[in-house]
Amino acid sequence: MRIDILTIFPGMFAALQESIVKRAMEAGHVKIEVWDLRNFARNKHRSVDDYPYGGGPGMVMQPEPFFLAVEHLRRIDERRGHVIFLSPHGKPFNQAKAFELAKKERLILLCGHYEGVDERVRSALVDEEISLGDFILTGGEIPAMAVTDAVVRLLPGVLPDLSVREESFTDNLLEYPQFTRPAEFRGMAVPEVLLSGNHEKIRRWRREQSLLNTLLYRPDLLPKARLSEEEKDFLRQEAKRRNIDLLL
Amino acid sequence: MRIDILTIFPGMFAALQESIVKRAMEAGHVKIEVWDLRNFARNKHRSVDDYPYGGGPGMVMQPEPFFLAVEHLRRIDERRGHVIFLSPHGKPFNQAKAFELAKKERLILLCGHYEGVDERVRSALVDEEISLGDFILTGGEIPAMAVTDAVVRLLPGVLPDLSVREESFTDNLLEYPQFTRPAEFRGMAVPEVLLSGNHEKIRRWRREQSLLNTLLYRPDLLPKARLSEEEKDFLRQEAKRRNIDLLL
Repeated sequence: MRIDILTIFPGMFAALQESIVKRAMEAGHVKIEVWDLRNFARNKHRSVDDYPYGGGPGMVMQPEPFFLAVEHLRRIDERRGHVIFLSPHGKPFNQAKAFELAKKERLILLCGHYEGVDERVRSALVDEEISLGDFILTGGEIPAMAVTDAVVRLLPGVLPDLSVREESFTDNLLEYPQFTRPAEFRGMAVPEVLLSGNHEKIRRWRREQSLLNTLLYRPDLLPKARLSEEEKDFLRQEAKRRNIDLLL
Repeated sequence: MRIDILTIFPGMFAALQESIVKRAMEAGHVKIEVWDLRNFARNKHRSVDDYPYGGGPGMVMQPEPFFLAVEHLRRIDERRGHVIFLSPHGKPFNQAKAFELAKKERLILLCGHYEGVDERVRSALVDEEISLGDFILTGGEIPAMAVTDAVVRLLPGVLPDLSVREESFTDNLLEYPQFTRPAEFRGMAVPEVLLSGNHEKIRRWRREQSLLNTLLYRPDLLPKARLSEEEKDFLRQEAKRRNIDLLL
């Protein structure tokens, strides 16, 4: 996969030079290039924004640098690329979307700033708008990092199979609690079952904890989870004990 | 405000050295310090993780470095600090939470990694768990940047008042489309009303566009928005024309 990122703050993307994304690049699973949008400005001050038509506070990013940059990107690599604009208007990003994007051969991520981006970028250049969530950031850079990180770790070969599968959201359940050494830390002991060596008991305890965590923190996920009748009964009992409304 | 961030990848936080967060630090509105969790490991390899009790894939981050680090942070600054663990178990972050956190005098952000973090960190050290959304990232670093960015821009003096107020989510409506120069770009013209100089017409057009954008892309926000009867009628008509189900 190839990911191109267009931004006025290329320095922010040092974050992609660490951890799993870095290893994925080194192993050739993904090529990531970060482009300074100002290099596509056609004025001597390299400015890429201007006042909004109709008045109002702030500055608006102009259409031309985005169009020139995407056209350049398509000249240097024939893969057209799926153009994503990170903005609060987009559909909220989620794990299903990460899996979907991980199947594309090229992504082009546009990072906005200031009060906004000229509407013609959205209407004529962008294939999809993605929002990280219902909060406001100073620009699209952190969302672009998040999308890149979430997608790259799903690419074949990047992570060992098991850890991608056994994790939150893939099956609409939160994870079970994890414990490591020491077995006792400041008076807090690891649950005995985890030291028992009884794999079936451990498996059952972890599944119950996973169900309980989801009930307590994200009950909205439960209707989408695949549960046995026994597990549904367990959840109904626990919900009743805790006065939690639960529709299953 | 003071923000301390605990991570095994301090280099990732170069992203906070740019843009509005950088200016806010320079102006003294916020002090941000990033700490390498490995400096709080008490073994010569500076390792901070170990195998999970009970078996299973991956490594789990140990409790001690987190406890030692937070204790150190409280020794060097008497403000206790609100300890936030970035994890998929947390409540999804949103703009209301950003406003709430912007009122604290100190935040301590813990970034997890690997398969997870020892449960005793969550149960005995953490005041609040925050999730960026229903997707999986390789660690808590990008979420910590997002929370920092969203909170810092709300601190008094960081942004001019107007731009914080007139934006998506604060009033549960998406923004209106923005246009800047040129007035015509590749055959696409700026809407005439924005060139009219008629401020009342422009205000009304922008409000309608904001309502329409919200109807099309985030109808779930509309029941929470403050709307006049006239605006509700407008939305009901537009919804009917487009065969969108709308409850107002």
